[in-house]
Amino acid sequence: MTETETPDWIAVDWGTSNLRAFAMSADGRVLAEASSDDGMGKLTRDGFEPALLRLIAPWLEGRPSVIACGMVGSRQGWCEAPYRAVPCTPLDPAALVMAPTTDPRLRVSIAPGLKQIRPADVMRGEETQIAGALHLMPGYDGVLCLPGTHSKWAHISAGEVVSFQTFMTGEMFALLSESSVLRHGMQGGGWDDAAFDGAVADALSRPERLGARLFSLRAEGLIAGLSAAAARARLSGLLIGTELAAARPYWLGQRVTLIGAETLSAAYARALAAQGVAAQRLPATDCTLAGLASLIRQTERTR
Amino acid sequence: MTETETPDWIAVDWGTSNLRAFAMSADGRVLAEASSDDGMGKLTRDGFEPALLRLIAPWLEGRPSVIACGMVGSRQGWCEAPYRAVPCTPLDPAALVMAPTTDPRLRVSIAPGLKQIRPADVMRGEETQIAGALHLMPGYDGVLCLPGTHSKWAHISAGEVVSFQTFMTGEMFALLSESSVLRHGMQGGGWDDAAFDGAVADALSRPERLGARLFSLRAEGLIAGLSAAAARARLSGLLIGTELAAARPYWLGQRVTLIGAETLSAAYARALAAQGVAAQRLPATDCTLAGLASLIRQTERTR
Repeated sequence: MTETETPDWIAVDWGTSNLRAFAMSADGRVLAEASSDDGMGKLTRDGFEPALLRLIAPWLEGRPSVIACGMVGSRQGWCEAPYRAVPCTPLDPAALVMAPTTDPRLRVSIAPGLKQIRPADVMRGEETQIAGALHLMPGYDGVLCLPGTHSKWAHISAGEVVSFQTFMTGEMFALLSESSVLRHGMQGGGWDDAAFDGAVADALSRPERLGARLFSLRAEGLIAGLSAAAARARLSGLLIGTELAAARPYWLGQRVTLIGAETLSAAYARALAAQGVAAQRLPATDCTLAGLASLIRQTERTR
Repeated sequence: MTETETPDWIAVDWGTSNLRAFAMSADGRVLAEASSDDGMGKLTRDGFEPALLRLIAPWLEGRPSVIACGMVGSRQGWCEAPYRAVPCTPLDPAALVMAPTTDPRLRVSIAPGLKQIRPADVMRGEETQIAGALHLMPGYDGVLCLPGTHSKWAHISAGEVVSFQTFMTGEMFALLSESSVLRHGMQGGGWDDAAFDGAVADALSRPERLGARLFSLRAEGLIAGLSAAAARARLSGLLIGTELAAARPYWLGQRVTLIGAETLSAAYARALAAQGVAAQRLPATDCTLAGLASLIRQTERTR
């Protein structure tokens, strides 16, 4: 941030594990950013305001609005922003919830997540990325896939989230590769594209065999010299392939855009390409900021 | 153990997490037992002998043979007992490996596990339970299922293990119920048979949807008041049902016997019964001891 430019507003992406804040100009540029590991998961209710102030105090002179999304709005968060039910637009300025604050410079609103009654599902944070993606791709109709700890597939039509589905793929990968018996065969880095591709294809053709294939990674490490790079890539391919098998109605014959971290989105794009789906890609942070920016513009318009 | 009866031999079941030893009479009765948490996973190579002596020193006066099975024979164990390849009998006295010892009272042999080249698979410890089951059910032809951390299904014919398949069902249940986002909805005990039955049926009919169904447990907890008991039972049912779907060739139209802990075997038996399979049940420890006993008898016969 230059010394002469004060932020017009502050964007906050506050998840379970991390807190990220962005000082924003009126025309949507990032003037400064800051982050910490003060995620929602480790804070008690009265810890949120101090955690936020530690990051953004230097930006508060002009009393900019702060707008936050993510798990900060959950029941265990700063204050609950009740889920909105799909089908609906991803964000609604009228549904923002003001967080209780003591510092007079702070004015913080929190965007609610979305819920789906049947099949039961929830999201917090991804709705903001979806809103941002729709802002970046006006008139988008089709499917958005947000790979991550809990991957989301969302069906978008006429500016609304029609339905969505969550898969625990990222969390399963972390648990299996770091905490299960499979970790023994995955020490060290490396990656093996052919192993990934083969595993995706295997999982897509026989997804019900996931449970059996997982232990093979360990057994092949013990008796057939499977490398750590191939084991990791195969685990990733098996889990992503199984997700794609179950999410087939979301991507088959659809326009698909991936929103997520670079490496993970690339893996999903590769797996989808093998199925004949050319997915577009958008960076997650760009979408989050665009989503919060659209919200702040609408809020100021209705003030 | 009565003061007048000294053990004829000592059975040792030595897994990754636990060490259990049994002082045995010549006619196969358990005279005494002892256990500790000195599992293979926490011992370095020179820690095995002291860990064993801590448990069995009082039984060593008559210098009984000690015979052990399980992860103690793995590459990271006391000394490696190389896998035997199926098809083969579950145990072979000629393949026992003597562990290096310094205490002159100790004479310890370790039973090797089994491997299958294609599809790659391994077991250590279960081969002894299988041998014991075949001793308890002479002439058994059919399938043995050993539910646990890593469930095994083994096809038995003419006294040999023809093929087998491992599923990480137990480890997945532990990781998901204790370490994933699902743990939040599973605090406290309780069980719900109807939820279990429904989840088994769901998973058997659409096993590829496991990844999608898992997160529903969290979402229904948040927005539909799913109880912890129902969530736990459904998670168990989804995982066991998915295993049964992939293991169908093992149980469909087959004679099936379950070898395992009481509660877990009961859950598998219930799930199989819903598919029209009336599985027999044998306690795991009985099978381990019968397997090691058959080995010691054969060893002494060939000495």
